[in-house]
Amino acid sequence: MSLFTSEVKLGGVGQEVSMESQRYKNCLREIRERANDVVDEQTGVHIKREDWLKLKLHIVSENNFPTAAGLASSAAGFACLVYTLAQLMGVNERYQGELSAIARLGSGSACRSLDGGFVKWDMGQKEDGADSIAVQIANETHWKDLVIFIAVVSSRQKEVSSTSGMQETVQTSPFLHFRAKDVVPKRIKEMEDAVARHDFSSFARITCADSNQFHATCLDTSPPIFYLNDTSKRLIGLVERWNTQEGSPQAAYTFDAGPNAVLFTTESNSSLLLQRLLFQFPPAPGVVLSSYVVGDLKTLELAGIKSLKDLASLEPPKELAEPKIPLRTPGELAYIICTRPGRGAFLLKDLGSSLIDSTSGLPFSK
Amino acid sequence: MSLFTSEVKLGGVGQEVSMESQRYKNCLREIRERANDVVDEQTGVHIKREDWLKLKLHIVSENNFPTAAGLASSAAGFACLVYTLAQLMGVNERYQGELSAIARLGSGSACRSLDGGFVKWDMGQKEDGADSIAVQIANETHWKDLVIFIAVVSSRQKEVSSTSGMQETVQTSPFLHFRAKDVVPKRIKEMEDAVARHDFSSFARITCADSNQFHATCLDTSPPIFYLNDTSKRLIGLVERWNTQEGSPQAAYTFDAGPNAVLFTTESNSSLLLQRLLFQFPPAPGVVLSSYVVGDLKTLELAGIKSLKDLASLEPPKELAEPKIPLRTPGELAYIICTRPGRGAFLLKDLGSSLIDSTSGLPFSK
Repeated sequence: MSLFTSEVKLGGVGQEVSMESQRYKNCLREIRERANDVVDEQTGVHIKREDWLKLKLHIVSENNFPTAAGLASSAAGFACLVYTLAQLMGVNERYQGELSAIARLGSGSACRSLDGGFVKWDMGQKEDGADSIAVQIANETHWKDLVIFIAVVSSRQKEVSSTSGMQETVQTSPFLHFRAKDVVPKRIKEMEDAVARHDFSSFARITCADSNQFHATCLDTSPPIFYLNDTSKRLIGLVERWNTQEGSPQAAYTFDAGPNAVLFTTESNSSLLLQRLLFQFPPAPGVVLSSYVVGDLKTLELAGIKSLKDLASLEPPKELAEPKIPLRTPGELAYIICTRPGRGAFLLKDLGSSLIDSTSGLPFSK
Repeated sequence: MSLFTSEVKLGGVGQEVSMESQRYKNCLREIRERANDVVDEQTGVHIKREDWLKLKLHIVSENNFPTAAGLASSAAGFACLVYTLAQLMGVNERYQGELSAIARLGSGSACRSLDGGFVKWDMGQKEDGADSIAVQIANETHWKDLVIFIAVVSSRQKEVSSTSGMQETVQTSPFLHFRAKDVVPKRIKEMEDAVARHDFSSFARITCADSNQFHATCLDTSPPIFYLNDTSKRLIGLVERWNTQEGSPQAAYTFDAGPNAVLFTTESNSSLLLQRLLFQFPPAPGVVLSSYVVGDLKTLELAGIKSLKDLASLEPPKELAEPKIPLRTPGELAYIICTRPGRGAFLLKDLGSSLIDSTSGLPFSK
């Protein structure tokens, strides 16, 4: 559940990124302060804790997730950066969540991206935010039945300009304080319970209600902040109609600081949800299926879709009998990512995965 | 400021409308109960109060305003119906706002449409709603400097399906109760002050903030209710950018239960606002200027626009320097109504305006 969002523009492919931003500097400073003596097992190189301040770093990063799309890619980036620096410099957490508090200095929501599975961000009490940390409440193997689709909205949709500063929400929205004080704490507890009990109905109900309330708070800001566009609303409509038709939650949606939907469902409903998505949001003409549905393709198989031909012959789902609903809107989505709850940051052991040439210290040219 | 909205589908041209709806019946019953002896001055016909129950009525209505567009056309219709019936049956208000309470039985917001100028809807205290009435706080001549544009969004915009029941908001939105209790009463007072003082800055600030908060509450409903679409947001953006650029409110927007904007500005800014609207939202190809800008055309003259050619040569307003803003989106608006605060319901005295043939008692065929 997001109260605050932030965004850092990351560099494009092969692009050098300045580390001048205070966000990078803060993370680097905090990690360096906690550095320890490190001996590299393979080379035997010994770096003393005080030397980390003198040494320079080459950092090369790669991201297979849509960036600047309000899908927390910068959160993932900062979590990865902090985790990797901590590994390199032998930093051990003195208390649970210490690294998450450092990642939070890079990007607020980055604190949630260090661990996998289900993570809770505790607001904390301290003025300096040192106890505003994220803790894992269940790991990625806890809820095997949960399936996730990410519907990435086509960028050819006309963008609505929006200010990005949630500080303005804090300053101007009458709803924000009420939400933070009277709504979120209760929902966090209910959500923890729902996750613990694998209770999809409660999980879905809270997820949708809280996404909508977060965006309602953005709208209550002066000037108003809009992240949802008309495609987002049609994605919401798809889920809400299905849930209403069945009389209980079959799927859930949540939107962060952008128009793209993260959709949740259960294993047994996963092909039904994917069929609904593909029925209402077919790819634009000329787009091939393999670039339209990406990630874990098991659900696509389960849904019996092997080609664009299978897609064209999909039957409308029963809740689409109502005549006024826009039936099929090709090209509104750029692509759909099929995935599941994942693991957090971890170290790749094989040198073949390295993005840095260990002899030159420079990035491999691609 | 709307907490509740409702809608009644009215008939099309030449269409007979059933009066079976409880909404019509309630209004008719309440008016009949208050009927008095009436003598028609011209014909000398005398109708006793008890006879109004036995007599039948032909009601013919005409509407020059967009219907079913979330622009309170049904509110205007019910206000007109109740006012006309009251005039016909010699009903005198026993207390101020009594007729508004009857109109409210037809359509909640109809209570606000009986009087012209600026009207306040008082929630009231009584269980039966008898004291939930509207009172005029200033008439239509009070604020001569105020100019209104209604931007009617093109229906070729894909509609987002939405449930219309604000009862669901009452039942499911955590924000609604907070809004009704902690936000609206204060804003009503501030708005009354702003109107009394002709304080456009305060008027604009409250109008925009409250429109946004009303729609935020709709979004906080489960399932969420959407009235604003992407065109609505671009209209909001137009006003917010201009206000930000100037450092103070030049214009204001409000949206009722639909995507169409009601825009307010002052006389001295009216041509600047109309130019901005026409710059960013030119008509679709083939649409003539005279059907695109309708109503009081004085502002169009002031803006120096006599033809589509003048429109094509409009300079971009200075706040549109930012490159990312979608500059011109032809056809997103159906038309723009130029108007001002108007008067309330009143009786047309000349028989030439009558919609009923006084010999046959039937509507004139058009």
